[in-house]
Amino acid sequence: MSILLTGISELTTNDPERTETSGADPGDSLLGIVRDAALVVSGAGPDAVVEWVGLEADAPAADERRDLGGRAVIPGFVDSHTHLVFAGDRSAEFAARMTGTPYDGGGIAVSVAATRAASDDELRALVAARVAEMRAQGTTTVEIKSGYGLTVDDELRSLRIAREFTSHTTFLGAHVVPREHAADRTAYLELVIGPMLDAVVAAGGAALAESIDVFCEPHSAHAFDGDEARAVLEAGRAAGLALRVHGNQLGHGPGVQLACELGARSVDHCTYLSDADVDALVAARGTTVATLLPGVEFSTRSPYPDARHLIDAGVDVALASDCNPGTCYSSSMPFAIALAVREMGMTPAEALHAATAVSARSLGLDRRLAPGQPAELAVIDGPSHLHLAYRAGVPIVRALDL
Amino acid sequence: MSILLTGISELTTNDPERTETSGADPGDSLLGIVRDAALVVSGAGPDAVVEWVGLEADAPAADERRDLGGRAVIPGFVDSHTHLVFAGDRSAEFAARMTGTPYDGGGIAVSVAATRAASDDELRALVAARVAEMRAQGTTTVEIKSGYGLTVDDELRSLRIAREFTSHTTFLGAHVVPREHAADRTAYLELVIGPMLDAVVAAGGAALAESIDVFCEPHSAHAFDGDEARAVLEAGRAAGLALRVHGNQLGHGPGVQLACELGARSVDHCTYLSDADVDALVAARGTTVATLLPGVEFSTRSPYPDARHLIDAGVDVALASDCNPGTCYSSSMPFAIALAVREMGMTPAEALHAATAVSARSLGLDRRLAPGQPAELAVIDGPSHLHLAYRAGVPIVRALDL
Ligand SMILES: [Zn+2]
Ligand SMILES: [Zn+2]
Repeated sequence: MSILLTGISELTTNDPERTETSGADPGDSLLGIVRDAALVVSGAGPDAVVEWVGLEADAPAADERRDLGGRAVIPGFVDSHTHLVFAGDRSAEFAARMTGTPYDGGGIAVSVAATRAASDDELRALVAARVAEMRAQGTTTVEIKSGYGLTVDDELRSLRIAREFTSHTTFLGAHVVPREHAADRTAYLELVIGPMLDAVVAAGGAALAESIDVFCEPHSAHAFDGDEARAVLEAGRAAGLALRVHGNQLGHGPGVQLACELGARSVDHCTYLSDADVDALVAARGTTVATLLPGVEFSTRSPYPDARHLIDAGVDVALASDCNPGTCYSSSMPFAIALAVREMGMTPAEALHAATAVSARSLGLDRRLAPGQPAELAVIDGPSHLHLAYRAGVPIVRALDL
Repeated sequence: MSILLTGISELTTNDPERTETSGADPGDSLLGIVRDAALVVSGAGPDAVVEWVGLEADAPAADERRDLGGRAVIPGFVDSHTHLVFAGDRSAEFAARMTGTPYDGGGIAVSVAATRAASDDELRALVAARVAEMRAQGTTTVEIKSGYGLTVDDELRSLRIAREFTSHTTFLGAHVVPREHAADRTAYLELVIGPMLDAVVAAGGAALAESIDVFCEPHSAHAFDGDEARAVLEAGRAAGLALRVHGNQLGHGPGVQLACELGARSVDHCTYLSDADVDALVAARGTTVATLLPGVEFSTRSPYPDARHLIDAGVDVALASDCNPGTCYSSSMPFAIALAVREMGMTPAEALHAATAVSARSLGLDRRLAPGQPAELAVIDGPSHLHLAYRAGVPIVRALDL
């Protein structure tokens, strides 16, 4: 069963081979844009595969034909940094912050308490609703972290539920030191890199997590310093997990250089960077991606990282939502793109590439639309990818159901 | 036929009488919030009327019952400043501006040419799609301006099509001086306040416009200075139209004080204000609303107006989208609210009030949810109005179809 998709005003392939049809836009070559395009897809649902990509005028026949009415098609967004497994409502904390209460990570304890108190079915329903909300906004691949359980059982439960929705799960037992361990950080750290990590990688015969992550932030009393973060990451690596780091969010710190040194797939936030941090990211190009999360700066009224400087220096820059109840309860990748363009000096093409190809790479994925690749597609209610930032705040993108 | 709406976690009534149930939030009294509320509505579609408002525990019987599942209900947004009647695509101009090309109003000519070239049916379909997009985001009342026709026939046609969607139409022949009149501004101004205005108020026996508006902006060679704007507004007033003004968008200028002096219902943008401008707005309280359009500052990378200062001084502040192809192609009132909270120092309650009650007042409407009022409602996928800004960029609000 094959489907021919026609009426595509502009197709973003992320395929650098596709430069022959590029127009005047300098971003076209980055995005591998084909105008007046068509796609042939076979299979259905998550098994759908791209069979053919090209100009509509050259399209082969297929079993079925679907006309997209002059819309733009892009690779589905890859949201490579989310915290979707949580219960409880923290909107009042947000409102208080907007009138002056600073963020220091302390509110995470509120989500931990609510998450522990929720039943499996309640948590599963909450994650399902969030994943559906993302898909309705064009996100077809999502990474999900644990980190609101912070006991062996609750972290395992969080990862098990996350695993029902994605294979890109990340163990974040080192999110914060939970209240009950505040008097003995070392004991909690030993729990994380000992019994908790053992359970994560041994559970059910296959690891429940693809990656391990740590909130490395000397500016928060609840998070972890450089030595503690190194211990977490080295233990995770020894257990066979890929590495991700929350680094340099609230101020300067060791997170970025540690991530680059240890070959992490991504270091996320990167809000406060020294020249040495940027040098480390440049040297780690091809291995470690800098994942920027501008929804956090929006929702915490913080200064934005300078994406323009990073890209010009040669750093691999990805975009993700950081969807979480404390610092950014936005699941919208188009919103992250609009902020990247407005606030961080990225071009519309760079932002889209960062939210698809580069974020995919940080999960070990390829996100080109080319024969043999998964047909993870999103459709824009508009003629080009420029509308993603041009139509800020408007829900014009959705994942294409096949 | 009456419907009882239940399962409302939080109801915003905008009714100052409703303070008895207010909680800890200081914004509650402004919004007239009722928690665990119910509503009885009679009639259907645009004729639906509120019959009863109160606690669910006290609700009377009705013919039908609909449970909203613990969601928040608010008055539908009143988007009191839009330019929906246009054809053509200006996303490339947006992309160029994001890489440094400044905005001066010159791009409006592109939309004028495309609008003139479109058929009635094409324009009608474009406006219908935009109004539907707004409704899907919670906007139940919309003002629509002309201003991309700029000939007698094309302005009339724009207003006639706008009139099919709203009674709140605004004649904006004085949007810019069109290219063909660039060598003789005075002739164009005489056309606007003479034959064009005559045709607008005489057409079909009833005025095609409720208001008249002018782009008063000495910083744009395409727009109108203070004397020209005064001539437009005085002619409009003499013809029986209410007054609206685009003022102080690109720099300091006479727009705000002129609007206050002439008793305009609203002066919009207010990005650059002197102390005398603020004093004039304070003195005009109850007559002239300052309508802020933060989507424009977002989309043109301009500084935001200081809403906090205006509210603290005692100015009536409204929010609207300014949905238009040049400076803000966002139709999202939730996005305007999120920007107002993040960038302009408004509280979530003030922003919601500004986007409903105050913007309504600038159209001569009451937007309270009380017995006898139109049942123009929007539902939030979330437990409270705080989620509007907390969940920035996520489409969680929709107009409630009755
Ligand atoms: Zn995070
Ligand atoms: Zn306007």
